[in-house]
Amino acid sequence: KRTASQAAGQRLDISGIYPPIATPFTEKEELDYHKLEENLQKYAQIPFKGLVVQGSNGEYPYLTEEERVEVVSRVRLSLPRDKLVMAGSGCESTRATVQMTERMAGVGADVVLVVTPCFYKGKMDSRALTHHFTQVADSSPVPVVLYSVPANTGLELPMDAVCRLAQHPNIVGLKDSGGDITRIGLAVHKTRALDFQVLAGSAGFLLAAYSVGAVGGVCALANVLGRQLCELQHLCVEGRWEEARELQWRLIEPNAAVTRKLGVPALKQAMEWFGFHGGSCRSPLQPITESEAQQLRRDFSSNGWL
Amino acid sequence: KRTASQAAGQRLDISGIYPPIATPFTEKEELDYHKLEENLQKYAQIPFKGLVVQGSNGEYPYLTEEERVEVVSRVRLSLPRDKLVMAGSGCESTRATVQMTERMAGVGADVVLVVTPCFYKGKMDSRALTHHFTQVADSSPVPVVLYSVPANTGLELPMDAVCRLAQHPNIVGLKDSGGDITRIGLAVHKTRALDFQVLAGSAGFLLAAYSVGAVGGVCALANVLGRQLCELQHLCVEGRWEEARELQWRLIEPNAAVTRKLGVPALKQAMEWFGFHGGSCRSPLQPITESEAQQLRRDFSSNGWL
Amino acid sequence: KRTASQAAGQRLDISGIYPPIATPFTEKEELDYHKLEENLQKYAQIPFKGLVVQGSNGEYPYLTEEERVEVVSRVRLSLPRDKLVMAGSGCESTRATVQMTERMAGVGADVVLVVTPCFYKGKMDSRALTHHFTQVADSSPVPVVLYSVPANTGLELPMDAVCRLAQHPNIVGLKDSGGDITRIGLAVHKTRALDFQVLAGSAGFLLAAYSVGAVGGVCALANVLGRQLCELQHLCVEGRWEEARELQWRLIEPNAAVTRKLGVPALKQAMEWFGFHGGSCRSPLQPITESEAQQLRRDFSSNGWL
Amino acid sequence: KRTASQAAGQRLDISGIYPPIATPFTEKEELDYHKLEENLQKYAQIPFKGLVVQGSNGEYPYLTEEERVEVVSRVRLSLPRDKLVMAGSGCESTRATVQMTERMAGVGADVVLVVTPCFYKGKMDSRALTHHFTQVADSSPVPVVLYSVPANTGLELPMDAVCRLAQHPNIVGLKDSGGDITRIGLAVHKTRALDFQVLAGSAGFLLAAYSVGAVGGVCALANVLGRQLCELQHLCVEGRWEEARELQWRLIEPNAAVTRKLGVPALKQAMEWFGFHGGSCRSPLQPITESEAQQLRRDFSSNGWL
Repeated sequence: KRTASQAAGQRLDISGIYPPIATPFTEKEELDYHKLEENLQKYAQIPFKGLVVQGSNGEYPYLTEEERVEVVSRVRLSLPRDKLVMAGSGCESTRATVQMTERMAGVGADVVLVVTPCFYKGKMDSRALTHHFTQVADSSPVPVVLYSVPANTGLELPMDAVCRLAQHPNIVGLKDSGGDITRIGLAVHKTRALDFQVLAGSAGFLLAAYSVGAVGGVCALANVLGRQLCELQHLCVEGRWEEARELQWRLIEPNAAVTRKLGVPALKQAMEWFGFHGGSCRSPLQPITESEAQQLRRDFSSNGWL
Repeated sequence: KRTASQAAGQRLDISGIYPPIATPFTEKEELDYHKLEENLQKYAQIPFKGLVVQGSNGEYPYLTEEERVEVVSRVRLSLPRDKLVMAGSGCESTRATVQMTERMAGVGADVVLVVTPCFYKGKMDSRALTHHFTQVADSSPVPVVLYSVPANTGLELPMDAVCRLAQHPNIVGLKDSGGDITRIGLAVHKTRALDFQVLAGSAGFLLAAYSVGAVGGVCALANVLGRQLCELQHLCVEGRWEEARELQWRLIEPNAAVTRKLGVPALKQAMEWFGFHGGSCRSPLQPITESEAQQLRRDFSSNGWL
Repeated sequence: KRTASQAAGQRLDISGIYPPIATPFTEKEELDYHKLEENLQKYAQIPFKGLVVQGSNGEYPYLTEEERVEVVSRVRLSLPRDKLVMAGSGCESTRATVQMTERMAGVGADVVLVVTPCFYKGKMDSRALTHHFTQVADSSPVPVVLYSVPANTGLELPMDAVCRLAQHPNIVGLKDSGGDITRIGLAVHKTRALDFQVLAGSAGFLLAAYSVGAVGGVCALANVLGRQLCELQHLCVEGRWEEARELQWRLIEPNAAVTRKLGVPALKQAMEWFGFHGGSCRSPLQPITESEAQQLRRDFSSNGWL
Repeated sequence: KRTASQAAGQRLDISGIYPPIATPFTEKEELDYHKLEENLQKYAQIPFKGLVVQGSNGEYPYLTEEERVEVVSRVRLSLPRDKLVMAGSGCESTRATVQMTERMAGVGADVVLVVTPCFYKGKMDSRALTHHFTQVADSSPVPVVLYSVPANTGLELPMDAVCRLAQHPNIVGLKDSGGDITRIGLAVHKTRALDFQVLAGSAGFLLAAYSVGAVGGVCALANVLGRQLCELQHLCVEGRWEEARELQWRLIEPNAAVTRKLGVPALKQAMEWFGFHGGSCRSPLQPITESEAQQLRRDFSSNGWL
């Protein structure tokens, strides 16, 4: 069992770059496992640390429970063993999250990414969230990564909860998509003694996150420009900051376009341009309009990517 | 079938007061149908127009799909036929909402309450939401009520979408929990020609909503002070505004306590004080603390309810 | 001196409708006292309770101290004695507000309207604001009205501060422009024993505010449709709610257009259409565009006002 | 005159660290020029690029116009000529800002820092702000630095306005206090061809800002730990990122304490502990409480500064 490493006092090394993979659908909005497989074979050629399956960009809230587990299973079967499968197992209730975590571990997830529950956001304070993540980590067969993504959830995992949870032997890190670099630096600083790993949740601040001590990134843009993000990571790790900066600058606008500005439908459109299967989204997500597609193209082309 | 009335060009009359009923759990967080049944028998004695099952206060995001349907089924079987069962059938994806709507109608829901999807809130614009609600209403066997609750979802159903959707023959109204009374007045004004019905989503602005043309309310506080809210409705409908105002004033603080300030756990605690079964919530919702309980009690007692 | 009434334990009656008058400028952005005078003569014919001078719509942050005082002086000289002059004397610092209040009272202001300071909004808690308003009210020669306008200031005067300040003998009321009707009802309820008067800060929720106990309104739209707002007030006071509602509905969109949506430049444009002098704003406020002007016109014409 | 350099096509070099100096008051809230002078003599010993006078931390909204100019004058007279005086000349109206800019330049300011006007925040779009800053820069005798500080103003200078304004020959840079590192990187990237200089507006993200191309910082914390911030700058400029990171980490919590968490009163308290004159603030700013002082001390001591 993977958690044996844990017993030995060593945490799973999660440093590196991960694309939070998009989920391809057919025109009738059914899962398209064939296209998924083709994407996976291309991703296997890129020096990613692993893949995030069912992150926000995977449209996981639009999948059934069965589909969520099935996608993780297929990814694990397809992907070389040396790549990590980090599976998004978060649900609104603690009990559902515990069960989903077990199921995903059961089909081969190496580590789970657990988003903050958010529907009752007014009540999701440190106490509630610490309780939630502790319950999940206590029962999880695999290591847990905390996931804070305020743009979608409307709440941030409080820093005091991060610090407390970082002490849990089965919680190995935090993916922070909020982009508050001061907070990311503080999370690293406050958990230094704990072998706790912080991942940037977006390509827009990947270099800056490395500069304050993050060890990797889960970046939507890695679905499209995966090699470039691995190169950026490489430059940061090597301390070649000048070159890293030049590359980082050119990634900001494409990244904003496929995330904050135009979202998953734009990410999927850009994937098509770069040789991957993107396709349409499940409703209520709508395809981007013609003028949005032009704007998207401009954000890539003006930075030399198209 | 009720929708026959629709064919005849008449919309279902949804005017009146509804408690969005809380869902009782056992200590092990299992559904407690026995306690639910006892609550229902008490609610049947109060002149409610009906019950909302799986509104925000019903912890529906914490129930499995099976549980969501089963609770609706039990409520319909228990409740007298002259009371409406308004069932919350909203899910994140359009396809899941369509299916859940059909299942809930299948077990006897008279009308469904469909919340705005919200996970990809940056993309949930008028276009996406109009498409979503149109798809759901097209296929729903029962009338649909739109549901905007920004405190939980982080987004408001845009007014232009409300106006367009109000023209759909199977969309009969809007539950607005945002509390922006100007917006509620405008929604009534812009849909006057359409026999579209607006319900206040909270007891704090019930009188004010009536004053600008709303026809009822779905009020968490009705789980606790149901008769008083029906009395407030009665006074408003009769035009006895002076008396209505006196009553409204005394309901603001208790209502805030069980909603915005302390949430569902406080609602359930207050239910216990007033002879109903509240009990605990599912995790990650936590019980209120001792000091919160004192504050809660004060908000009721200082207004003469305890 | 008016405050003699105060010594007698009676507070100044501020109930009724007030336009927060716009400040006319010449093309070179100089104050145009001639146009101001002409507006005042027209306003004197409308059954307003008085005028608010240097409310948010008066562009007071763009006037020098001298100009602020001079405008109040001119208005007082021009306006019949039976109309109140409510002068906006708020500044960022307490000492400046104290001085401005004295100067405005010195040139004839009957009552002052004091906005919450807001630059250090993170520090403007109940403690700081209670201290500020108490200092101002202690030294003010005329009664003080509290002013909460979150759209401009980014903060709301906390309810506990309102309740505490309502006990001050020289604080007679609150103008609340936030539009949270639950809060307005609560402010009335919590200060009932104190002869404290709440004014609605916008025409969009005037009827609703009356329905929960407000006694008047300071409404930007009264610069344009002053008679109609006085008529709405009359209907509310008389308890003719059906008629009031019909009128209220037709005022929502014009009001939103000249406030939240298009702001002071639109208010001034609409004034021109209705026979008043509006003119341009001081920079950085820009004139509305052609397409905004069309939208503005539509918001008036579709409701039967143009 | 310094702007001669401008005619020669070279912009003023503003790279480096600046404390936005606090303004000392007597117990009666009068300006205390003696204490100011003593602080200045100490600051002159630290390798700052210069001082910001009347930044947000200088309580400038609480000073009269005369006081604002007088403080700038005194600072210029006291400070060695090789240190820049960057004076905050922003007012709400364009005309007042133009005048204040001239006056401050007249008493020796080397460069002015102009905050976004913010009272009518709903109308302060790119068009209005571009117009405002262009007017100011056109008439300013000294170079202009744009200043975006959303925590106080409630608005951010839009990126398209930054890019357009960066082309103005008399606008040399941007101080960005929002802390959105992606935006800071983008501002550098989009203005690279223009010799436009970006300064971090807070010590919490100083290293990260350097990592993406900023050239300095205006940091409240430099009033207290000025040498350390100059050391951090030195490490960044030298590319000694490992050491820089260690130092950056220890500055995050003290910085947060004197800015976002506890504000100017805490900054002034901390100044006292470190041998400077802080003293009290003008009302309505209140002194920190005893428990806040303990928290403040902890944020310094737990990072090894006290």
